[in-house]
Amino acid sequence: MQTKIYFDHAATTPVRKEVLEKMLPYFTEYYGNASSVYGIAKESKQAMERARKQVADAIGAKPEEICFTAGGSESDNMALRGVAEALEKRGKHIITSAIEHHAVLHTCEYLEKKGFRVTYLPTDADGKVSPADVERAIEADTILVSIMFANNEIGTIEPIEEIAAVAHKHGILFHTDAVQAVGHVPIDVEKMGIDLLSLSGHKLGAPKGIGALYIRKGTPIKPLIYGGAQERNRRAGTENIPGIVGLGKAVELAVNSMEEITPRLQQMRDRLIDGILEKIPYSKLNGHRTDRLPGNCNISFSYIEGESMLLLLDALGIAASSGSACTSGSLDPSHVLMALGLPHEQAHGSLRLTLDWDNTEEEIDFILEKLPGIVERLRQMSPLYEAVKG
Amino acid sequence: MQTKIYFDHAATTPVRKEVLEKMLPYFTEYYGNASSVYGIAKESKQAMERARKQVADAIGAKPEEICFTAGGSESDNMALRGVAEALEKRGKHIITSAIEHHAVLHTCEYLEKKGFRVTYLPTDADGKVSPADVERAIEADTILVSIMFANNEIGTIEPIEEIAAVAHKHGILFHTDAVQAVGHVPIDVEKMGIDLLSLSGHKLGAPKGIGALYIRKGTPIKPLIYGGAQERNRRAGTENIPGIVGLGKAVELAVNSMEEITPRLQQMRDRLIDGILEKIPYSKLNGHRTDRLPGNCNISFSYIEGESMLLLLDALGIAASSGSACTSGSLDPSHVLMALGLPHEQAHGSLRLTLDWDNTEEEIDFILEKLPGIVERLRQMSPLYEAVKG
Repeated sequence: MQTKIYFDHAATTPVRKEVLEKMLPYFTEYYGNASSVYGIAKESKQAMERARKQVADAIGAKPEEICFTAGGSESDNMALRGVAEALEKRGKHIITSAIEHHAVLHTCEYLEKKGFRVTYLPTDADGKVSPADVERAIEADTILVSIMFANNEIGTIEPIEEIAAVAHKHGILFHTDAVQAVGHVPIDVEKMGIDLLSLSGHKLGAPKGIGALYIRKGTPIKPLIYGGAQERNRRAGTENIPGIVGLGKAVELAVNSMEEITPRLQQMRDRLIDGILEKIPYSKLNGHRTDRLPGNCNISFSYIEGESMLLLLDALGIAASSGSACTSGSLDPSHVLMALGLPHEQAHGSLRLTLDWDNTEEEIDFILEKLPGIVERLRQMSPLYEAVKG
Repeated sequence: MQTKIYFDHAATTPVRKEVLEKMLPYFTEYYGNASSVYGIAKESKQAMERARKQVADAIGAKPEEICFTAGGSESDNMALRGVAEALEKRGKHIITSAIEHHAVLHTCEYLEKKGFRVTYLPTDADGKVSPADVERAIEADTILVSIMFANNEIGTIEPIEEIAAVAHKHGILFHTDAVQAVGHVPIDVEKMGIDLLSLSGHKLGAPKGIGALYIRKGTPIKPLIYGGAQERNRRAGTENIPGIVGLGKAVELAVNSMEEITPRLQQMRDRLIDGILEKIPYSKLNGHRTDRLPGNCNISFSYIEGESMLLLLDALGIAASSGSACTSGSLDPSHVLMALGLPHEQAHGSLRLTLDWDNTEEEIDFILEKLPGIVERLRQMSPLYEAVKG
């Protein structure tokens, strides 16, 4: 079915028109290799440095602390493995949480095979990591704490500043996967004490295939990709100028419009959450009620399969997800919802609706009108539900 | 100076108009995450699979053997480190050449720090690697031979089929960095016995930030980027759909027009080479005269600095390079020219002009008219040249 209503902005966003417009000349007109010396290459280099400043300004960093990558997953891999390699003589212990994105979790598993030890902290029922838990987990040879800024499935915003303070008190570096947070909640790496921060373009109106890793000046880190001297020898490969230009513009747009858009998103999100919980019995909000991304709604429905719900929504032209896009196709329930302590069948029956700048009140009306019937129809196929109702 | 004549296609190419046209709808209209299940995501997935087939067809591979990456450097890193990690229990020796791209050489140096041994084969004066040298370098625990298809600075095409045959005779995997070759010379991975092949979009009319690694079915390899299950669990990260669509179209275009464009390029290249050698004394062609990329001209001029020549060319609106773009800004002479045995000062005085589909005979005329004066002007500043002339 052709998608008419898009409620999956946490999976990916369209490129904003203003962003694409800025990018276009760099494909065909100013296409120079930024490492070269002639006219057309200087245009590329200047555009790249403007974008670097835009990204830096958006998170309170200095331009030279921004290293462009191909996306959030590469940034996460680079942060964890890069620090692990740089500091392996100092220590081999890393602290993270059980609800991180797979780009962090699977990288940690890789590092475990290489002789590192990783503590996967649990969260409370809302998905919050406790700074006290972080402190208790610190060992003599802990080199890195990596806790996501906001969770991609349930939208819970973590107490980043407190966790960073705990890490720093013990002289430990702090990384945060902020792929879902940048452009959606205010971030200041200086004030918050963040040493490394991953971000991704296509979650905020820039194209897929571009991202960045903020690396605080002086942070010991090895490259993930070796080769040319690009990005101050931190990341080899010809710079993706159109993508970089798009990322700069999109981050600037998102941060500049945050004050205006956030209250609107929060209001739509809350109407969506309250409406669903009110209209549909045996439904339950996942994630923290208020410390939550402005566009995230994640609800579990007992007695149904998330996958079937998505198919019926798709038949109405509604794009939604049951969890992270990166793991769809897999039959495993969400590792995030399982970590919150949800029973297997509730984790399977979850629906994630993520809103952004291009959603409307009418779209909220439409899904609030249609969803109860869809859930009821699926539940009528469940013998368990019949028994409970009976 | 604004660039009017672009002679640096080996550094990067403009995106071809037809390629950008195909990409555009995937930024703003069909922007779905290819891993999702709804309408707009299926469009992305189908477009990606069409592009995968286009890339596969262009090199005689099967679609499932194509793994999309963010570019040539990532592909090279993934090939070398991925195979090294997969086979480290079998062996720790790798064979490559001294004239590889830094994405291969610096990855090899990284692997050396991790306990691998690397043989860097010399070449002959034309930059050719000898299959017999490869065979002599094989040790009991050699796991990989990696030799580039065609050199990025001097354009020399290596005897890939013979080298692959030597590797296979000894049960060793063969990788080739074909970033400069794909779309410019015919490649058939089946016929040539290539197990892994790196390619990059922006060297053939696709955008920067997209590339691929061909991985022959059954080849043992570990990922470089961990996370989601994209690319059959070989490379995590949301797929760069516009880039992938562009790569597919550009590879198809390049391969389909090769028969028509190659003779024209070769003729322009030869006119350029012969014209320069004839008009400018103390000049010398670098690289093989005939086993050479159709668009590559690389010439050393005694008694001058390459960098100054580039600046004077830039002042005429001509974009050229003195070697690889990835190392410009560095004061070291080209490692490729040094490996050919050129004296330091000749390696410093080299000029690379690389042509492609959008160059014209008039542009060749123009540089043949201007270059002798530029070289003469620079030589007049050289006391050494005065002495030789005198």
